[in-house]
Amino acid sequence: MLDQVLERARGARAAAEAELFELISIPSVSALPEHRDDCRRAAAWLERRLRAMGMEASLIDVPGGGHPVVEAEWLGRPGAPTLTVYGHYDVQPPDPLEEWLSPPFEPVVRDGFVHGRGADDNKGQHLASVLAAEHWFAAGGPPLNLRFLIEGEEEAGGRSLPEHVRANASRLATDFLLIADGSFAAPGLPAIVTGLRGMLYTEIEVVGPRVDLHSGIYGGIAPNPFNSLAHILAGLKDRDGVVQIPRFYDDVVPPSAEELAGWRGLPITEAGELEAIGSSRLTGEPGYSLLERRWARPTLDVHGVIGGFTGAGSKTVIPARAKAKVSMRLVPQQDPATVLSDLREAVSALATPGTHAEVVDLGSAPPVRMETGHPGVAALRRAFAAAFGAEPVLIREGGSVPVTVDFQEALGTHLLVTGFGLPGDALHSPNERMSLDQYHRATEAVIHLMHGLAGGE
Amino acid sequence: MLDQVLERARGARAAAEAELFELISIPSVSALPEHRDDCRRAAAWLERRLRAMGMEASLIDVPGGGHPVVEAEWLGRPGAPTLTVYGHYDVQPPDPLEEWLSPPFEPVVRDGFVHGRGADDNKGQHLASVLAAEHWFAAGGPPLNLRFLIEGEEEAGGRSLPEHVRANASRLATDFLLIADGSFAAPGLPAIVTGLRGMLYTEIEVVGPRVDLHSGIYGGIAPNPFNSLAHILAGLKDRDGVVQIPRFYDDVVPPSAEELAGWRGLPITEAGELEAIGSSRLTGEPGYSLLERRWARPTLDVHGVIGGFTGAGSKTVIPARAKAKVSMRLVPQQDPATVLSDLREAVSALATPGTHAEVVDLGSAPPVRMETGHPGVAALRRAFAAAFGAEPVLIREGGSVPVTVDFQEALGTHLLVTGFGLPGDALHSPNERMSLDQYHRATEAVIHLMHGLAGGE
Repeated sequence: MLDQVLERARGARAAAEAELFELISIPSVSALPEHRDDCRRAAAWLERRLRAMGMEASLIDVPGGGHPVVEAEWLGRPGAPTLTVYGHYDVQPPDPLEEWLSPPFEPVVRDGFVHGRGADDNKGQHLASVLAAEHWFAAGGPPLNLRFLIEGEEEAGGRSLPEHVRANASRLATDFLLIADGSFAAPGLPAIVTGLRGMLYTEIEVVGPRVDLHSGIYGGIAPNPFNSLAHILAGLKDRDGVVQIPRFYDDVVPPSAEELAGWRGLPITEAGELEAIGSSRLTGEPGYSLLERRWARPTLDVHGVIGGFTGAGSKTVIPARAKAKVSMRLVPQQDPATVLSDLREAVSALATPGTHAEVVDLGSAPPVRMETGHPGVAALRRAFAAAFGAEPVLIREGGSVPVTVDFQEALGTHLLVTGFGLPGDALHSPNERMSLDQYHRATEAVIHLMHGLAGGE
Repeated sequence: MLDQVLERARGARAAAEAELFELISIPSVSALPEHRDDCRRAAAWLERRLRAMGMEASLIDVPGGGHPVVEAEWLGRPGAPTLTVYGHYDVQPPDPLEEWLSPPFEPVVRDGFVHGRGADDNKGQHLASVLAAEHWFAAGGPPLNLRFLIEGEEEAGGRSLPEHVRANASRLATDFLLIADGSFAAPGLPAIVTGLRGMLYTEIEVVGPRVDLHSGIYGGIAPNPFNSLAHILAGLKDRDGVVQIPRFYDDVVPPSAEELAGWRGLPITEAGELEAIGSSRLTGEPGYSLLERRWARPTLDVHGVIGGFTGAGSKTVIPARAKAKVSMRLVPQQDPATVLSDLREAVSALATPGTHAEVVDLGSAPPVRMETGHPGVAALRRAFAAAFGAEPVLIREGGSVPVTVDFQEALGTHLLVTGFGLPGDALHSPNERMSLDQYHRATEAVIHLMHGLAGGE
């Protein structure tokens, strides 16, 4: 039966591409209120697809939540294990628009890649699993029980899916949980993720004068919240990238010798990363390798600053307030709550005289460590070998997938965290793309995985 | 003859008030296109008044400019000095309208003050000089040559008057130039301005990666231009407000002992300024008084920051670039070009590894120092003493009045910079007002000034 399913998938590639283009064309930007209806349209599109193949599918609106969760279930193999597939249909905002070579929501194929916002992150990746399930259904039914949980708030830090999972933990019990929201370690080199950095996302707000003031009249006596903010941000991370928040590194657990040895064999070089980043040199903590800085060390980045005069030309205002978006990437065993409290203390102390600074918590996720000794990882290894002809390596990822923590805590399940994208797919950037070859092979890999998790060789 | 002129002025107070109300009633808001015709109406109103008293008056439209300059001239005293009076008939936009107790362009007298937009800034102030000239003409002619230059772009940053002055410098040659666009230091305490701070307005642009990057994937290795910008801005001015640009203070000339003594006597207190600013404390360089920091010390302020993610919620981007609007207030004898070049050097050195920073010059005005040793200042002192019964103090102003630089450079004349308004007249704010007593005494002061400049005691 496996061969028949694979055969069917290979014969349906044109249709599979058309479906991906259709889904990319829905601008489901979860962070922007004007795209609220588009998010629901993307969810409804997935719900229809999942129902059409024979699953019980519904849109779940969590009270107080934002965008609906697509839940689909088929429990037609009593006694067989259950696989739950995670995905997110929401995408990052596409700005800056002027840097896209083609419009972000009008998918175009160039050089074997489909370009469009969400092509890799995460529409192409979860659609591969949707197609894999569909081909199994068309061939008589999957060899194991299946569930899909596809959320619409991953890029906006929403809590609808985590709350849904925690509130329905026993009904949603599952043996394995596939999260394909990452990438290969290199072209031709699949990867299984054994650790994810956590995150703490904050807004630092600084207040100076009561109202905006004229800098000619008050410059030299009125505290300026932007100058204060600069001192706060410069004080949080030094010029070399070492975070200065008190106790920040105290709970960091170094990677194992085995992990470090594996990372040394990866074809990821300073020169290659410099090329990808396009700056004059890399930054980061002295004394740590490139992959340690990226996967096993915490860091801090400023994402934007709000307030004051930002128009063309010159306006001489001392603004009343300034805000910065600041996030920290956390690694095992850092605790976001502890870091937040230490950050608050540091920010208060760094604010310059006459200004007052507060830290608003915009959301956090603890770092995650995944076990590799269970049969799911073995099945995933075989699936990659069969579909891509390559053995996966064990890596970590620098990004956060907050829901993994909820899955781990609420469902106690075996996580299979991996990715079908490629480095260079420009996630969160202009000209995001997904290799069509990766997309089709990913569909076959998930077909293999379903077979393997059900006990097939 | 002086007594006769003064007598005439005292007998014409009701008419003088009616004229001020008429001019305030013309909503000559230069920044709003819908008031373009009103600006011309105000200019024509002044032109008529000046012509009626016997001056040659005309409206000058500078090519490429906005609102006309009112120029009027009477050179009927060969051998006597020439006084040019500056003013501006344009006013600030009146918003927020709901905070006005009476409509901004329907002047109403309450408690001895006429309330209306432009009452103080600058209609009441230049009308006093127009009336002074008129009373001299009515009594047989002014004792010196007279010129008026009343512009309509002061509140909109227009360059019509400066260009007119520079293009006609020899024809507009003048011995003294009166700019009454300021205020008393306190009720009963006239002030003569001896210095204005200059300005250098820049945009600092920092480039990190070639494109926006995901902070999960690249955080720890990719240089972040916002973190770099924070180090640059924090490095330009320390926590106490001391500017760190190399050589920044080298050319600063301290105020004279006479100036400092005068400032110590002014009723301007830390408590009063704190109340106006509404912050927990004032800032500024240690070791300098409030008024030194405001008038005689240079400073640096950040007005806003551009780029990155500034929407609601959280987006984990390492942006490709970040820009800050930064200006410096300069004092005599700082040279904007020298400061710009030192700033460029400092900014380059402060950018963190892997980022590159550039400084864009958005415009500058040199600081201005007014000499006080010439007979014009002596005459102005006597005029204040005679009309207000008080000796003026020498003060400076923290803001820039760019046209003073043009007058000084193009005409090489003795500037008399002063003001007839009172603190609390709410310039640029709702319920702007002008004391009628100040207005009438200002008229007498200018009558005295004309007499004194002509050599009278």
